[in-house]
Amino acid sequence: MLLLDIGNTNVKSYDSNFVRRDSVKGFIFPKEKFYFINVNPSCETYLAKLVQAIDLSSFFSFKTAYKGMGIDRLAACYSISDGIVVDAGSAVTVDVMSKGIHKGGFIMSGLSAYKDSFANISSKLIYDLEKEITLEKLPLNTNDALLYATLKSIVLMIENSAKDLPIFMTGGDGNVLCKYLKHCSYDEMLVFKGMQKVIKEMGEHVNDSLT
Amino acid sequence: MLLLDIGNTNVKSYDSNFVRRDSVKGFIFPKEKFYFINVNPSCETYLAKLVQAIDLSSFFSFKTAYKGMGIDRLAACYSISDGIVVDAGSAVTVDVMSKGIHKGGFIMSGLSAYKDSFANISSKLIYDLEKEITLEKLPLNTNDALLYATLKSIVLMIENSAKDLPIFMTGGDGNVLCKYLKHCSYDEMLVFKGMQKVIKEMGEHVNDSLT
Repeated sequence: MLLLDIGNTNVKSYDSNFVRRDSVKGFIFPKEKFYFINVNPSCETYLAKLVQAIDLSSFFSFKTAYKGMGIDRLAACYSISDGIVVDAGSAVTVDVMSKGIHKGGFIMSGLSAYKDSFANISSKLIYDLEKEITLEKLPLNTNDALLYATLKSIVLMIENSAKDLPIFMTGGDGNVLCKYLKHCSYDEMLVFKGMQKVIKEMGEHVNDSLT
Repeated sequence: MLLLDIGNTNVKSYDSNFVRRDSVKGFIFPKEKFYFINVNPSCETYLAKLVQAIDLSSFFSFKTAYKGMGIDRLAACYSISDGIVVDAGSAVTVDVMSKGIHKGGFIMSGLSAYKDSFANISSKLIYDLEKEITLEKLPLNTNDALLYATLKSIVLMIENSAKDLPIFMTGGDGNVLCKYLKHCSYDEMLVFKGMQKVIKEMGEHVNDSLT
């Protein structure tokens, strides 16, 4: 079973064995049957024409008062009953789940978007995202001042929502952010687990209707 | 006495009566004598040629271990003994002063830069910066999810540094941010007050050398 999670920057694929990450630009969609979720407007028309592509978006049964929630956020939350769900990709989405019900959430810039944003403000505001720094001590140079603000603003926002609830982290920058958070577990598979759950439910529904 | 604070986006002028804000693009520098600080690389060469322009940057006597601090941040801090100094412009700079000594600080994106950053990630991530929202309740739609993240990430970062110290806010978006913070006072003149202080010190120094 082939699953595709199509984002604004990357396509993540899972074939029951490995997760693979490719750039959306120039991506060649599989010729065999695949299940997908997609948040990238530029892929919508093309995907709609592919007979082998099954859009899972309408099959999720998700309890929320949130209007217009991205399907990737929803899928990441779908297998979590209680906790904070964070998807750290091009954007960093943070959602609160309680007893299987989505209580709301918010969207921050991703790490690369922060970096680009600073560079757009001034040519002097450049920094190394790879450097490891402490968030306990006030910065004393421009590189640290930018990196500290980028990381700590995301960390404080997650902590403020989480209180003592567990944090379920996924996405390309998830491993970096997880290091700075307590009660945080990284799961590359979080979105795919949501997709697998809905596929199972679709199957169960089919079975139900057959009996 | 004419003072100019030249930023990346705007030039702020103060003529002892009024503060005026003009876009850097197409700005015509005064022909009479003026004192200035400048963080905009594109203005450096031109300003160096103007005989009527007095660069204050080398006259500040400022205690800090911070390397490469922007002269506008330094000027905003210069008249503050104890507290958090926030300049909310194209970037939001946050600095901690204790007993007249600068303890460090950090740099966040400005409100407009956040908005542009989201729009660059996806055409779906657009929002109204003018809307008033509560930061106490989890957002339930995309507009609020982006606005909440933008405002609250800056607010939490400032609160985290401030603890119970007073917050001295300046800059174009300072009034908006101040609404969401306790112990916060907005002062449009903060940078100019620092510039006035250094000019006074220069004068005192001249007087000293005359006696």
